[in-house]
Amino acid sequence: MSPARNPLAGLEGRHFISTQDLNDQELKALLDLAEELARGRHGKLLEGKVLGMVFFNPSLRTRTSFEAGTFQLGGHAIHLAVGQGVWKLEHRDGVVMDGAASEHLKEAVPVLARYCDLLAVRCFPSGSDWKEERKDPVVTGFADHSPVPLINMESSLYHPCQGLADMLTVRQKLKRPGGKKFVLAWTHHPKALPTAVPNSAALIAGRSGMDLALAHPKGYELDPLVMRQLQENADRLGTTLEISHKLDDALDGAHVVYAKSWGSLKHHGNEAAEKKLRSRHRKWIINGDGMARTDGGIFMHCLPVRRNVVVTDEVLDSPASVVVDQAENRLHVQKALMAALAGRLPRPATAPKRTRGGGS
Amino acid sequence: MSPARNPLAGLEGRHFISTQDLNDQELKALLDLAEELARGRHGKLLEGKVLGMVFFNPSLRTRTSFEAGTFQLGGHAIHLAVGQGVWKLEHRDGVVMDGAASEHLKEAVPVLARYCDLLAVRCFPSGSDWKEERKDPVVTGFADHSPVPLINMESSLYHPCQGLADMLTVRQKLKRPGGKKFVLAWTHHPKALPTAVPNSAALIAGRSGMDLALAHPKGYELDPLVMRQLQENADRLGTTLEISHKLDDALDGAHVVYAKSWGSLKHHGNEAAEKKLRSRHRKWIINGDGMARTDGGIFMHCLPVRRNVVVTDEVLDSPASVVVDQAENRLHVQKALMAALAGRLPRPATAPKRTRGGGS
Amino acid sequence: MSPARNPLAGLEGRHFISTQDLNDQELKALLDLAEELARGRHGKLLEGKVLGMVFFNPSLRTRTSFEAGTFQLGGHAIHLAVGQGVWKLEHRDGVVMDGAASEHLKEAVPVLARYCDLLAVRCFPSGSDWKEERKDPVVTGFADHSPVPLINMESSLYHPCQGLADMLTVRQKLKRPGGKKFVLAWTHHPKALPTAVPNSAALIAGRSGMDLALAHPKGYELDPLVMRQLQENADRLGTTLEISHKLDDALDGAHVVYAKSWGSLKHHGNEAAEKKLRSRHRKWIINGDGMARTDGGIFMHCLPVRRNVVVTDEVLDSPASVVVDQAENRLHVQKALMAALAGRLPRPATAPKRTRGGGS
Repeated sequence: MSPARNPLAGLEGRHFISTQDLNDQELKALLDLAEELARGRHGKLLEGKVLGMVFFNPSLRTRTSFEAGTFQLGGHAIHLAVGQGVWKLEHRDGVVMDGAASEHLKEAVPVLARYCDLLAVRCFPSGSDWKEERKDPVVTGFADHSPVPLINMESSLYHPCQGLADMLTVRQKLKRPGGKKFVLAWTHHPKALPTAVPNSAALIAGRSGMDLALAHPKGYELDPLVMRQLQENADRLGTTLEISHKLDDALDGAHVVYAKSWGSLKHHGNEAAEKKLRSRHRKWIINGDGMARTDGGIFMHCLPVRRNVVVTDEVLDSPASVVVDQAENRLHVQKALMAALAGRLPRPATAPKRTRGGGS
Repeated sequence: MSPARNPLAGLEGRHFISTQDLNDQELKALLDLAEELARGRHGKLLEGKVLGMVFFNPSLRTRTSFEAGTFQLGGHAIHLAVGQGVWKLEHRDGVVMDGAASEHLKEAVPVLARYCDLLAVRCFPSGSDWKEERKDPVVTGFADHSPVPLINMESSLYHPCQGLADMLTVRQKLKRPGGKKFVLAWTHHPKALPTAVPNSAALIAGRSGMDLALAHPKGYELDPLVMRQLQENADRLGTTLEISHKLDDALDGAHVVYAKSWGSLKHHGNEAAEKKLRSRHRKWIINGDGMARTDGGIFMHCLPVRRNVVVTDEVLDSPASVVVDQAENRLHVQKALMAALAGRLPRPATAPKRTRGGGS
Repeated sequence: MSPARNPLAGLEGRHFISTQDLNDQELKALLDLAEELARGRHGKLLEGKVLGMVFFNPSLRTRTSFEAGTFQLGGHAIHLAVGQGVWKLEHRDGVVMDGAASEHLKEAVPVLARYCDLLAVRCFPSGSDWKEERKDPVVTGFADHSPVPLINMESSLYHPCQGLADMLTVRQKLKRPGGKKFVLAWTHHPKALPTAVPNSAALIAGRSGMDLALAHPKGYELDPLVMRQLQENADRLGTTLEISHKLDDALDGAHVVYAKSWGSLKHHGNEAAEKKLRSRHRKWIINGDGMARTDGGIFMHCLPVRRNVVVTDEVLDSPASVVVDQAENRLHVQKALMAALAGRLPRPATAPKRTRGGGS
């Protein structure tokens, strides 16, 4: 009898664009490995491996956690900031390149893949046409042209490493999340922020077996593609999906309050109109009264968070807040992910001893 | 009989904000270790350790010496430049964060501490109110919120790593600095520079057992807190502290000439007034005539130095100049410091063999 | 009898400014080592070594390939971007430094050499006086002041690491390049680009034993110093050197088409005049018709390349294009180069066994 195959073995060489790319077995195995890595060092799983990180937008947590994690596993991460030490990159096909971009992804990505064993890219929407931006042309272009595994460090639609960290946090804090209530709560903010984090957070709520309540003002609907995925997750896993336009109602009986601001996709790229709509909803803030409605719920946020705009000091400084643990989990899930994509899994320590003569 | 405890053992887990944080035994032991490290490799004292360096201001020497030194000891340093790839950080309590800063130190620092084993921060004064800036709110905020050792890479008040390097240089070049004369000489410069370096240089002069002469034009007094510390050092160690407003007089019989420009704290933040005062003192430059007054003195400067403004080519290119050795010593003292703060001291090579049955 | 000395042993401690610094034996041995390194890992040749990379201009390939290569050999590369986290540097002698530059190469370079075992610098011409810029004052200044090996990562005149990669590519693709035809073809481009790459490409064509045809519009002559070196190479090695002002004619029978745009040195620094001249030559593009004239020639370019301006999609996406292999070779030649300059050559695996008692 051969031992059960590690579900992570199937991740070797694959790209990682969304948590939806992983089946339930893979997702569970990845979080198991992340927890194992969190408990201590597991040798140099990425010994000699190079990760190339391409940032079109700034980063603190993402860069630091990837760079630290790669090093801790014996590898090395290279930080490339486009437009700041690195020139602009073109992604469109057939273009006469006489504009600002001096290199096409068709060259840049295969070349980086000759130097690096893994690639990672971050590219936020620029605030132009959402119909185009929701296709994630840059991240998709990297994926199309990369012969080595590509990790999405946040695109227009997804922030899947954050999603993994969020799911690990839910698992650690709730022990048995199945059937409990996860509220994704829109909040006010001085700027119209991207929707990648709320999308990924909502997607992993269902994958955790939790009932999901989306709470946001009218006009702040998530992208229809994501809504369809949320419904599919709910149908398949037997959980519920609700939408509420009243924050207080949504918070009733919640076990997880995930606060996040995002911009209205209806007014994507129209700053004035979006701001006008947003300014009507300054009361969307998570405070002590809101948390009192929950069922001893935990407070989650992806960070960076604006204190006393998104959430009050009172909540953020209370024991209910798990935001720092959530951020720490970025490190562990990303290490597990890189090891899996690079095909460098630790040997199963818990595997039963092979009986002599047994095959594999 | 147990062997004498290594004074550096007490540094494990501590922050390092000023050389005044170290007692005389610790300071001596730290420089001893730095000299030992300078003589060759001592294994991988920082194996697997991550240093997170947060720069609010640019750096050449500090960044390179920390990054090289961490690597040489088996660790890895991450370079984070705030406002250039990393967003702005808030440090004030209770603020409604609807301005430029998108993250508070209360989140950023604990999160970095989950990824990094050591943190280091550089934050110069911004030229606003000196009463506020002298409290070093950013560096103090990092220290308050960091559960891992924090190293000051230059704050408004102190540049203690430079101070350590300066003290090591004095020890190497003068052999017996006790009772010799250390002149901290203000010089002209096109800009009003911070006072952290002169403060730290003056503080270590006393700690080296040297008599200190501060030479600067009227209006360029150092901060009263530092003056008090200088007087305390002098009283405790039996050295002298003098202030002179005539450069030539001060240089008479000097063994160390430490040149450094700084801005008048009286006019801190008032560029025009400061410039007007400064422009009267263009003759404050270290040249061959000045050096001829010394007792075969060495010339020190923390670098970067503006040639023929702060010091003439003649002096800087002479054998009296030790500025490059001084910069090299940054590497050695910082390696010793990191090893001590991380609790990773080398095993004592000179310890007597334990007799069988002897306890510790 | 002692075995033949490795020609690379003579490179230890030397600077590398131009491929012309290497004699034929050294050049061949360096490419041999690069091919050996390309075939697999060869231990940690740069174990514990630090490379300091100083960029006055942005980079993708150069930085990534150096950083990845140093890591793969057990070392660490530090990325310093002047004017972006690092202050400006003065290179002129005897200057009163009251301007923008706050540090002189005379201090900055020796200090970096105390922290780093190897240095590398990139400094493009700034578009001022070509008579001054062609002296490469910054790179030359680094070389003059550096006690450790200095690598030119692209100066006004040379991009020798690109040249090495180009020569390795020619060797791999043509097997026996001797006597075959290498066309360096000027192309149109939206900007006046530097001449370092065409210079270095032309120089290695001769060194590869190939006949060189320079094809460019009138007014786009290369620097006379380089033309003299090209003629010397041709004379010494018995190859030919031709200049053509008709792209089609030059392409006839070519085995290598090396496309590259550059600005007219006649109008160096006069953007308007240069642009006017350049705008007359939009037809200088490499397309399928041009490639059809060659003798099954390969297409080379240093990247980044502007599609459908310098070369058509048709050519760049055809099997004739070797641009990604060329870029990969940067990694291998630079690793070989660093190992040689650092005096860390691999032990000869193919050396005959020593007979007992034999000397060395």
